[in-house]
Amino acid sequence: MTQLGIIGLGRMGANIARRLAANGHQCVGYDPSSDAAAALSDSGVETVNSLSDLLARLTPPRNIWMMVPSEKVDALLDELRSGLSKDDLVIDGGNSYFREAQRRAQDLAALGVNFMDVGTSGGVWGLERGYCLMIGGTASDVARLDSVFSTLAPGVDAASPTPGRASNSGTADQGYLHCGGHGSGHFVKMVHNGIEYGMMAAYAEGFQLLSNAVEQIEGFDFECGEVAELWRRGSVVESWLLDLTAKALVADPKLEELTGRVSDSGEGRWTVQTAVELGVPAHVLGAALYQRFSSRGEADFANRTLSAMRREFGGHSESQ
Amino acid sequence: MTQLGIIGLGRMGANIARRLAANGHQCVGYDPSSDAAAALSDSGVETVNSLSDLLARLTPPRNIWMMVPSEKVDALLDELRSGLSKDDLVIDGGNSYFREAQRRAQDLAALGVNFMDVGTSGGVWGLERGYCLMIGGTASDVARLDSVFSTLAPGVDAASPTPGRASNSGTADQGYLHCGGHGSGHFVKMVHNGIEYGMMAAYAEGFQLLSNAVEQIEGFDFECGEVAELWRRGSVVESWLLDLTAKALVADPKLEELTGRVSDSGEGRWTVQTAVELGVPAHVLGAALYQRFSSRGEADFANRTLSAMRREFGGHSESQ
Amino acid sequence: MTQLGIIGLGRMGANIARRLAANGHQCVGYDPSSDAAAALSDSGVETVNSLSDLLARLTPPRNIWMMVPSEKVDALLDELRSGLSKDDLVIDGGNSYFREAQRRAQDLAALGVNFMDVGTSGGVWGLERGYCLMIGGTASDVARLDSVFSTLAPGVDAASPTPGRASNSGTADQGYLHCGGHGSGHFVKMVHNGIEYGMMAAYAEGFQLLSNAVEQIEGFDFECGEVAELWRRGSVVESWLLDLTAKALVADPKLEELTGRVSDSGEGRWTVQTAVELGVPAHVLGAALYQRFSSRGEADFANRTLSAMRREFGGHSESQ
Amino acid sequence: MTQLGIIGLGRMGANIARRLAANGHQCVGYDPSSDAAAALSDSGVETVNSLSDLLARLTPPRNIWMMVPSEKVDALLDELRSGLSKDDLVIDGGNSYFREAQRRAQDLAALGVNFMDVGTSGGVWGLERGYCLMIGGTASDVARLDSVFSTLAPGVDAASPTPGRASNSGTADQGYLHCGGHGSGHFVKMVHNGIEYGMMAAYAEGFQLLSNAVEQIEGFDFECGEVAELWRRGSVVESWLLDLTAKALVADPKLEELTGRVSDSGEGRWTVQTAVELGVPAHVLGAALYQRFSSRGEADFANRTLSAMRREFGGHSESQ
Repeated sequence: MTQLGIIGLGRMGANIARRLAANGHQCVGYDPSSDAAAALSDSGVETVNSLSDLLARLTPPRNIWMMVPSEKVDALLDELRSGLSKDDLVIDGGNSYFREAQRRAQDLAALGVNFMDVGTSGGVWGLERGYCLMIGGTASDVARLDSVFSTLAPGVDAASPTPGRASNSGTADQGYLHCGGHGSGHFVKMVHNGIEYGMMAAYAEGFQLLSNAVEQIEGFDFECGEVAELWRRGSVVESWLLDLTAKALVADPKLEELTGRVSDSGEGRWTVQTAVELGVPAHVLGAALYQRFSSRGEADFANRTLSAMRREFGGHSESQ
Repeated sequence: MTQLGIIGLGRMGANIARRLAANGHQCVGYDPSSDAAAALSDSGVETVNSLSDLLARLTPPRNIWMMVPSEKVDALLDELRSGLSKDDLVIDGGNSYFREAQRRAQDLAALGVNFMDVGTSGGVWGLERGYCLMIGGTASDVARLDSVFSTLAPGVDAASPTPGRASNSGTADQGYLHCGGHGSGHFVKMVHNGIEYGMMAAYAEGFQLLSNAVEQIEGFDFECGEVAELWRRGSVVESWLLDLTAKALVADPKLEELTGRVSDSGEGRWTVQTAVELGVPAHVLGAALYQRFSSRGEADFANRTLSAMRREFGGHSESQ
Repeated sequence: MTQLGIIGLGRMGANIARRLAANGHQCVGYDPSSDAAAALSDSGVETVNSLSDLLARLTPPRNIWMMVPSEKVDALLDELRSGLSKDDLVIDGGNSYFREAQRRAQDLAALGVNFMDVGTSGGVWGLERGYCLMIGGTASDVARLDSVFSTLAPGVDAASPTPGRASNSGTADQGYLHCGGHGSGHFVKMVHNGIEYGMMAAYAEGFQLLSNAVEQIEGFDFECGEVAELWRRGSVVESWLLDLTAKALVADPKLEELTGRVSDSGEGRWTVQTAVELGVPAHVLGAALYQRFSSRGEADFANRTLSAMRREFGGHSESQ
Repeated sequence: MTQLGIIGLGRMGANIARRLAANGHQCVGYDPSSDAAAALSDSGVETVNSLSDLLARLTPPRNIWMMVPSEKVDALLDELRSGLSKDDLVIDGGNSYFREAQRRAQDLAALGVNFMDVGTSGGVWGLERGYCLMIGGTASDVARLDSVFSTLAPGVDAASPTPGRASNSGTADQGYLHCGGHGSGHFVKMVHNGIEYGMMAAYAEGFQLLSNAVEQIEGFDFECGEVAELWRRGSVVESWLLDLTAKALVADPKLEELTGRVSDSGEGRWTVQTAVELGVPAHVLGAALYQRFSSRGEADFANRTLSAMRREFGGHSESQ
């Protein structure tokens, strides 16, 4: 079993700590919010009140898993740096840009401190389902945390075997993978999130089409939620995202509780920017991102420009 | 000079009649609205009070130019049919779907009546600038109306000569062209409008980007209207649409009088549907159309679906 | 148990017949290819040599399931028509355009013959996994074939229950659903396939990004197949399509056996055309379709046009 | 008249020098290639053999216009730096990323050297048509070079007046504009190029549609070049890019001399990346860029992935 410090006990960090503690690892957690720490009181996770307490509490060489928003990582590393010792291993388990991971690895290496980037998928469901872990770093560091990764990951039984795949061919079929050098874990996680945006948009457009059909075509009186449920069995579009969509539509069949202003986060943006950098056509991943911008009114001036042109060349009012 | 009946004296039809009459053609106009007819009182265009008067007033074989919304063409043809004689020529100068033109040509041919489809570009500016005419039909029918077309078209001086182009190579450089068989005129007009949608969207996205930059980047305090004016001279994006955009931005620099609900019409939709039918990738033309749908709220259910998924897998509220 | 005639014993039809026969239904199959019939010899499916034999073999009121390419349905109906009796029920289980289903339902109703459109998903896996059935027609016709549908569908155990969903709320959770009136079954199947195109494109773009990263970024030496396997457990992008992708990448890690000329079929095209008709923004579904066109060289003239413009305004050769 | 050093005498730099010299400015040019310098021998542009000669030849405070590829700017500045004096003004007239301009302005300011970014549009036609100049920097630096800008720009007569625009409202109507602070010139040029990509793609898709129609629809036998010529007069899609397209199609009506592998350059990529950064939906500008990537085979793995999925779920070979 492994001793691990965890910084950041929000939704993700707290559940990671719980899952590790429940499986015999020694977890020491820290969060600036004392409420976050208190919520772990009966989880087997020890919590401390400061970063220095955390560093003191861990036996060198330490393993320190950061689970904080990407924009806070550099400040956190600045605070940690002086307290770190040679051969400590710092893990960024959040959603940082992969080039930042490469830079941080280099910076810490100058101090003799190891760094690993671990893209962590699973959201609020990870405690129960396990986390899919995309790991970038050195082979020795990955080996050092192997028991942590195998505990966090869903394990081989979480999906049926892939036909033809040798049973002893690495850890991917357990739900964690050493992808490559520094940054590659966050890179693969970034692409994962990009695909997620694209899949979500595909469903969203499809459900909009169903919704418009119900309004416009006589006799088409299906419920979107029933169709989502239907597609969960035997269709080509089966997925976990569809399962969640079906669940959401049970609770609120017209989704009337939502406004439709869709947030986006760093990974979706980095995916498109990196696709451009690497020369990859990203029609779908890009459109999925832009749709979210539009949903928040970011095409308003563009739209008014279109209306202005139509008025000028055709004398059209906006409603014509 | 040619005698021509014109049915439909709206913005387009009235100006076509004016331009023809001003250049010596004999125009007889009809519109169900007496106001529309009255507005032509000092234009040299004769107006009549009914379709039957129109038919009576024209000397067979008649030339009848319909300038009505595409959804009214079949009803109009139904009214006209019994009054038409062999060798009459009916022109659809509006924006009809090209397959309808093909069908109508066939239907009228059974009566010995000729049909021609003329895609007509120029909007409210055509009276002054001339109309760009995209013509589908038989060579003999096109020849029969050549003097009408050459009057309506802008003429060769409207643009500088294309280097390398033989001066006697057809009528395209005067602004009218016999494109091919029935339907091809409306087809070429449809593609023209599809391109128009795409160009408009390219400008609109660019101006949104300028607008966001002014808000978000310190020291970027340009006016969109000044940039539009700037690009009118010496840039690669010079165009008539840009001229119109610059004009609109002089009058209303933030386009605050507009709501940004952008209408679309048949040709934009037909372009995308026809691209799909012919297997043509229409990323840009499609996106331009969809953007208009979105501007009118047609992605709202899709957006709420996205928010619902985000809430389910990540516990994200809409503002996170 | 129900007696059912099946016309068309290709991949889909034969397996449907097998699954029904294996579960006690009386299936009579017909295919113009005697090989197709012969392949069912030990399946419990009875086969006949002609349409008239099929009609003779079934006890009126007959149930006749057509499983043929959409472009052959009208010809088949023409052949069948004279042999059908009042209250026979004809099912189109293939991928027809939903408006054709509406027309056919109306045409057959004039003869007193019932019609039902059943979108059938499951591909070559349906025999084993069951078929997801999207049904359009009258309630009484759907009830008449309920035992057939419940046999073909995967059944409730094929997926975990949706939290909050009442266990007695219809058949969707068994994998079949009466969607609405005539055409609605094919409509929902069409949208399903549209979403499928979009999801596939999202994955495809993601894997292209991974592939380019391996080539362009030092130290990023992952295998796409390992990443696909990884994402099957605990990630947000888990899906059946991903399972299949992982399987394909085990067998051919670089996909070198394929040329990348991607076919498309009617449903993908109809989805985009219908989205346009109903005013639905289909950025992702459209892009997925256009990408397939491009993969087959359908953007070649467009690309040469771009190169021509670049040469003209900038003097750029194609490699600059 | 102004004394100006020009570094980089390629297509753009040489013509800028010629246009300035022809209008009485004192131009001193330098290019590492002696051929480039020699080509200016009878242009009135003085050329020198080294950067140090250039610096020596100019009277402080110097004006130095760099016209080199963006990836060479930093190296050039490194070479120049030690020779620059307080109040010298360095202009980057090339296509650099706007944030680089901001950084360079700051770096040079530390030496008391002024910096200006001037986005320069006009391509090989600028000598004759004049250049559209998008300028970022301080008001005093812009004033210092006003006579240079007014000489390079096309001038007010290059386009008809914009209705409603006051004749004394700034320089935009002459074809140059002080857009704002450092970087804003390159920013506006970047957006210009993004729009250019989008417009080009709109035309390209339209011409592909025309081309496919000629192949697939009977009786549609138009020439794309004739249609391009047609649209130059009176249509809504009139533009300079269309003029160039018409010209290219005269010389090579099927564009058979081109391969259709379309290059892209920094500004197109920066536009999309910046749109993402600023939260601007860039469906059209993005698609235009991705199409160029695809034209060079960058979607090949994506396409093979699609074919692989189709084979797995449907048993489809690639040609089905």
